[in-house]
Amino acid sequence: MQIIFLTKNDNKIREANEALLNYGIKLTAAPENVQKLEIQDEHVENVALYAAKTAYKKLKRAFVVEDDGLFINALNNFPGPYTAYALKSIGIKGILKLMENIENRGAYFQSAVVLQLLGRFFLFTKKVHGTISLIPKGNAGFGFDPIFIPSGYDITYAEMDLKEKSSISHRAGAFKEMASFLNNYYKKYYENYTK
Amino acid sequence: MQIIFLTKNDNKIREANEALLNYGIKLTAAPENVQKLEIQDEHVENVALYAAKTAYKKLKRAFVVEDDGLFINALNNFPGPYTAYALKSIGIKGILKLMENIENRGAYFQSAVVLQLLGRFFLFTKKVHGTISLIPKGNAGFGFDPIFIPSGYDITYAEMDLKEKSSISHRAGAFKEMASFLNNYYKKYYENYTK
Repeated sequence: MQIIFLTKNDNKIREANEALLNYGIKLTAAPENVQKLEIQDEHVENVALYAAKTAYKKLKRAFVVEDDGLFINALNNFPGPYTAYALKSIGIKGILKLMENIENRGAYFQSAVVLQLLGRFFLFTKKVHGTISLIPKGNAGFGFDPIFIPSGYDITYAEMDLKEKSSISHRAGAFKEMASFLNNYYKKYYENYTK
Repeated sequence: MQIIFLTKNDNKIREANEALLNYGIKLTAAPENVQKLEIQDEHVENVALYAAKTAYKKLKRAFVVEDDGLFINALNNFPGPYTAYALKSIGIKGILKLMENIENRGAYFQSAVVLQLLGRFFLFTKKVHGTISLIPKGNAGFGFDPIFIPSGYDITYAEMDLKEKSSISHRAGAFKEMASFLNNYYKKYYENYTK
């Protein structure tokens, strides 16, 4: 089954497809005339839902949108839904500066995936808890991956290869939830509909 | 002339009305069922325009929306359009930490006001350049006022009283542009229309 993934970030498509490898679902890029509209909201779920509902006005085929963010406890959930802008402006260096001399390094990454199917919207969300490292490590992944150490690991997201990250990441987790839902409940219905 | 100001921030209404005192224009709060929808965009102009166009679907009377942000040179324009979230999360303390040991303290505040009148949208924008102070000073104003020193002054926005801030601030500047426009071009037309 092919589903459109409405995103400007090819890294996200690659990661999600790696996570969906065993589920018989393949995500493909969206037509260029459909934009992902992001609202300002503290909750990535709301950002993803609004983007999906807006895109649905133009795009009637099955599609997903995803929003994610890094929420750092000691910074009152900064950068949260504005993770992309924080990365582009203050970057990893800025986050580490804000975290200087801060002992509580707890943080989580959250992904919210919204699937639009036959005019209905289904939300799947996954948090991965962890800590902010003292220095950046690793070259894989993207975004704030080099400073996020998921709980139970002693390496950052960016020190994992695509396969390992996709076995545990927040994004992979949300997409796998979606895949289970599709395979368990919706696949037959959907396939009949789209024949 | 009364115009609705669509904002959740009463401070903004007070400041704008102070700026408009001599222009015969009075801003009033919006009906509670009309929300200001803010998109994620690097330009406050786009945020304000989108909010105005969305609100117009519900609100057919004359209204204004405003978006503003603090753009810090050395932080690649952070926090920019996400100033409200930065204030709420990392706060003044966070900005000063990011600016530690940084010599280039240049920054500007920008306000973008969009006026909706008879289904047309008019944009007025104003930047005020200045510097980020080393420590917070003053108790007036709100937001990042205690760390912004406008060019030509040696005190922060927060050390000015409402009257003084409204004589020079970015918000006041944009609203005064709007007022001149209304008084010079549109007032007669508008008053005929609303009689």
